[in-house]
Amino acid sequence: MLGQVNNEGRLDPKERHEIGTRVRRPLFMRCLYRASIKKRIKHTAHLGSPQTQRVISNDDAATMQQSFPMNGGDGPHSYRNNSHFQRQDINVSRTMIEEAIAKKLDVKCFSSNPFRLADLGCSVGPNTFIAMQHIVEAVERKYLAQGLKSEMPEFQVFFNDHVGNDFNTLFASLPTERRYFACGVPGSFHGRLFPESSIHFMFSSHALHWLSKVPEELLDKNSPAWNRGRIHYTSGPEEVSHAYAAQFEHDMEIFLSARAKELVVGGMIVFLIPALPNGIPASQNPYCVMFDLLGASLMDMAKEGLISEAQVDSFNLPIHVASPEQMTEMVEKNECLTIERMELVDSRSKLVGPINGKECAMCLRAGLEGIFTQHFGSGIIDQLFDRLSKQIMESSHQLESGNKEGTLLFVVVRRK
Amino acid sequence: MLGQVNNEGRLDPKERHEIGTRVRRPLFMRCLYRASIKKRIKHTAHLGSPQTQRVISNDDAATMQQSFPMNGGDGPHSYRNNSHFQRQDINVSRTMIEEAIAKKLDVKCFSSNPFRLADLGCSVGPNTFIAMQHIVEAVERKYLAQGLKSEMPEFQVFFNDHVGNDFNTLFASLPTERRYFACGVPGSFHGRLFPESSIHFMFSSHALHWLSKVPEELLDKNSPAWNRGRIHYTSGPEEVSHAYAAQFEHDMEIFLSARAKELVVGGMIVFLIPALPNGIPASQNPYCVMFDLLGASLMDMAKEGLISEAQVDSFNLPIHVASPEQMTEMVEKNECLTIERMELVDSRSKLVGPINGKECAMCLRAGLEGIFTQHFGSGIIDQLFDRLSKQIMESSHQLESGNKEGTLLFVVVRRK
Repeated sequence: MLGQVNNEGRLDPKERHEIGTRVRRPLFMRCLYRASIKKRIKHTAHLGSPQTQRVISNDDAATMQQSFPMNGGDGPHSYRNNSHFQRQDINVSRTMIEEAIAKKLDVKCFSSNPFRLADLGCSVGPNTFIAMQHIVEAVERKYLAQGLKSEMPEFQVFFNDHVGNDFNTLFASLPTERRYFACGVPGSFHGRLFPESSIHFMFSSHALHWLSKVPEELLDKNSPAWNRGRIHYTSGPEEVSHAYAAQFEHDMEIFLSARAKELVVGGMIVFLIPALPNGIPASQNPYCVMFDLLGASLMDMAKEGLISEAQVDSFNLPIHVASPEQMTEMVEKNECLTIERMELVDSRSKLVGPINGKECAMCLRAGLEGIFTQHFGSGIIDQLFDRLSKQIMESSHQLESGNKEGTLLFVVVRRK
Repeated sequence: MLGQVNNEGRLDPKERHEIGTRVRRPLFMRCLYRASIKKRIKHTAHLGSPQTQRVISNDDAATMQQSFPMNGGDGPHSYRNNSHFQRQDINVSRTMIEEAIAKKLDVKCFSSNPFRLADLGCSVGPNTFIAMQHIVEAVERKYLAQGLKSEMPEFQVFFNDHVGNDFNTLFASLPTERRYFACGVPGSFHGRLFPESSIHFMFSSHALHWLSKVPEELLDKNSPAWNRGRIHYTSGPEEVSHAYAAQFEHDMEIFLSARAKELVVGGMIVFLIPALPNGIPASQNPYCVMFDLLGASLMDMAKEGLISEAQVDSFNLPIHVASPEQMTEMVEKNECLTIERMELVDSRSKLVGPINGKECAMCLRAGLEGIFTQHFGSGIIDQLFDRLSKQIMESSHQLESGNKEGTLLFVVVRRK
């Protein structure tokens, strides 16, 4: 396990040494450049359990993390009304989740009551309710299949997202017919959220691609990773990609370490994350292409004087699209976790008809409006996503060909 | 235990009989009138565990309960900025809570990790954060005093209130330096909120006096309990008081039954509830006097044509101020619970200076604005509480003399 934080909130010298050693053996794109980035970010590690750290400060303010929740409420631009692509992904993976529970979740090793599950990065629904319902039903079937009807547990579901998430909307739309006790858990999943060994099943859909923050190098004019004129690494130089990858690796290490502590032995994490096949450049991934289109729209608007180029230079989307290889290495690095299944899924192939630019733009807007508004102000939002809608249609061939490669990574991880 | 609900959501015939028997032996004001009320409300009992009921539908819509959360946000009329009287009560009772934990909470009988506590009816803070912090510290001291330093648990705090509570404000103001994992639990405490045997300590301050709904008789023109021209039972006929008392008794029975299921053996509930001494009429209790003043203001406004008398006739505050005797009988009726301490506290005596009408009116407004607005519209609110402020000053002698009797009931209950 990585860096326990001592009572004074500082890293123990021994732990510092261990982290240092690990930094000198970077994982999947070995280069000194990334090691230097990791050295700089290691002090934000936030893994201390309450026993050692006492203070549990997992809010964005406390951890210096950035938080841009999905659009709240129930309006025309809300995530609630513009998340059908994500819902499609959850539905496509339903059978795979049921299989994982049926074949790999050993409920006999759990104490019978209650069964606790968590959705990490749940946003405001309804997708999270659909997913939680599927999982509860699959676990119930597992108990029945194992002849444990008399030990059928009660279920408690923890809905987690950033403090800024619209929990009021989430709670107001909880299904009346639910079969579980519901809780909301505010805080970043890039840190501890639950007591040790207290959760049996964790789920996370379309959330883990968010970085805890923008890598600082991207904003440093003296760094080779300065990301001038772009908002993502899609068409940027290698140094920019490496800075993103290093931040993702750092975040995933913390995420997995925290989850390993919180899961009971035999517990399971299933996550769905936008991804690209091994060896495929970001420029062939539809998510990355759309981020690039957004960047291009912003640069067009800068040229028209609607915003300044400096504003574009100082903005970067904290989103990383991982590969199966990268994810495998991250999980395997954690000694308490083991991969039960990992598969690229082409969920978009289930969608009928050609790409709809407006629909894609609305879906992206529901997730990204907050972060763009904070940096550029709300005045440009309508125009930005109108432009994106048109650009998506113009790039539809590129986007559709990318889809065939599989854009969603389905991962089942078990706590050893 | 009272009425388990079967799979079809109906009361089991055996349970119906038991409830019927109990109804024929009413508790502390024996009269046939109240028995008839109880018969009418018994079918709303909501005690089924997921094993028997499967569907956990504890939202207000599902249970037909009424919900009027405290004023949310951070504005001048918010509960957050107008709850210092309640905070005073929490501070006054701090030593008593610490004593209860030190003397009566047997932490050795708990499995060590985590220690789960809940605040039922927490509103939006900061009072709940202060109370939870005190309790966590007192439990930590108890572990140390018992030589259990090495078994010091992690803490998980469940903040509960109605679905309509402003959880976004609550979560945004969680203390950064907290030593516990925080969760929000939406739903009425007049029903199940947590899995069986999952909570070690429960707290509830200034919440249990809220009834789950207005007794229906108060709105029935043909009933002797029709509460014409009043909004509370303070100066009403006996039938009105009895209808309130029966509803309170019904609600407390459900509350205590649910808590008995949710608490671990040896677990504890501490609650603070506005109360009046045994044998003292409501007209001598300052809370009840203020409700009466509000009713009188509304009738004045009706006479001035600002609202109609019919509007006043059809409105009643779902609030009951209990006596120690009444509370004792309610707890003793539950076979799983035992009273460890019950005491009337005169917390207002710690306040310096004479009654401040405006301050009292603001405090009451933060708690009651929602329910008045829903019935009368927002247009009358400023004027209603301005009038109340003046009337409080005119009745200050009556209010101050009432204070000396003790207006807050401190109760410690242990799960056998």
